[in-house]
Amino acid sequence: MKEDSDVLAIACRPMANVSPVTASSLAHQPFPTPSPFSFSVASTGWSSRPSIHYTNLGLRFSVLLFSFVSAISLAIPSKKKNQPSSFTAYPELMYCFTVHILAFLYTSFQLFKGICDIAHRGFLISDMISDYMSFILDQLVGYLLISASSVAIPVILQIEKATPLWTAAIISNTMSFVTFLVIGICTLLSGYKLCKRIIW
Amino acid sequence: MKEDSDVLAIACRPMANVSPVTASSLAHQPFPTPSPFSFSVASTGWSSRPSIHYTNLGLRFSVLLFSFVSAISLAIPSKKKNQPSSFTAYPELMYCFTVHILAFLYTSFQLFKGICDIAHRGFLISDMISDYMSFILDQLVGYLLISASSVAIPVILQIEKATPLWTAAIISNTMSFVTFLVIGICTLLSGYKLCKRIIW
Repeated sequence: MKEDSDVLAIACRPMANVSPVTASSLAHQPFPTPSPFSFSVASTGWSSRPSIHYTNLGLRFSVLLFSFVSAISLAIPSKKKNQPSSFTAYPELMYCFTVHILAFLYTSFQLFKGICDIAHRGFLISDMISDYMSFILDQLVGYLLISASSVAIPVILQIEKATPLWTAAIISNTMSFVTFLVIGICTLLSGYKLCKRIIW
Repeated sequence: MKEDSDVLAIACRPMANVSPVTASSLAHQPFPTPSPFSFSVASTGWSSRPSIHYTNLGLRFSVLLFSFVSAISLAIPSKKKNQPSSFTAYPELMYCFTVHILAFLYTSFQLFKGICDIAHRGFLISDMISDYMSFILDQLVGYLLISASSVAIPVILQIEKATPLWTAAIISNTMSFVTFLVIGICTLLSGYKLCKRIIW
């Protein structure tokens, strides 16, 4: 042990596959490395950004597309023909339409935030609040989508077959289920991000 | 640096609130400590078991109780009176009944596994498979429950009010929603456990 009280000498065996530089930096940093999501734009370039960020953006874009198709396919037949059997006649289909619009708005916000993050980190809200919010809202949107898909099935069985509304409801429900699956993957990703933040 | 190639001397500043012993043990153990869930019964006593384990068991017991009440409240009126308006006449209520029975069976298995774990660790399946399985099946049961609850609401509105089946369906659906909320918390816990296992 040296006399200087500020400097501590530690004797340890060099570990396999760990260079002295790494071991030294480990000794200086006893706490685990921070989450790969909590990096700053200043220190990292475009290419070193984790691919999970882009995967997330891609998934969000799919959700945006699917929920838009799901909502528009319900709305189009009721606009084309002024028949009384538009989707507004069925409260269950109205609920589905509302859920798809909500999913669309939420995903638009998430995409906007994701793009803002690439342009300027932490432009809208802090990372921690964003991680918590994403996880909770992803879960909520997922549950709303599965609920809407389930509610629509008995209605589809009630609607007269081969009518434009019947086709629209089937397309909408299929898209709704696909959106639910993609949102499910988004929830897993945001849950993983949140867990990393809590544990690290 | 000493001459002995097996021993590496590192000079570093002692950190605040970290004793030399801790720093030394950190240098010897560069990887984070293992998950608190991966302990063995041999090394830990009853009192040192993490409280999350008991919370989980308590939640599972609630799910068992609620799903049982939910299923039985649907089944009782149809047994009491041989009226045609039993829940079997409505496919949506049959679906709810099936989901509650599935939730009951799954939770019975989870409770059995939890009690087996207390008696003899790893009696049934390995911890890793159990964590993955619990997370996936919790999610699945949660989605099935919210789907069943949603599907039952339009049917409850169709059923004649103040009949035994109407009351039963309302009790069942309320319990189903409560079960969903508790399963939601179970999913969060099992997701947290799984994340700890993946990250650590």
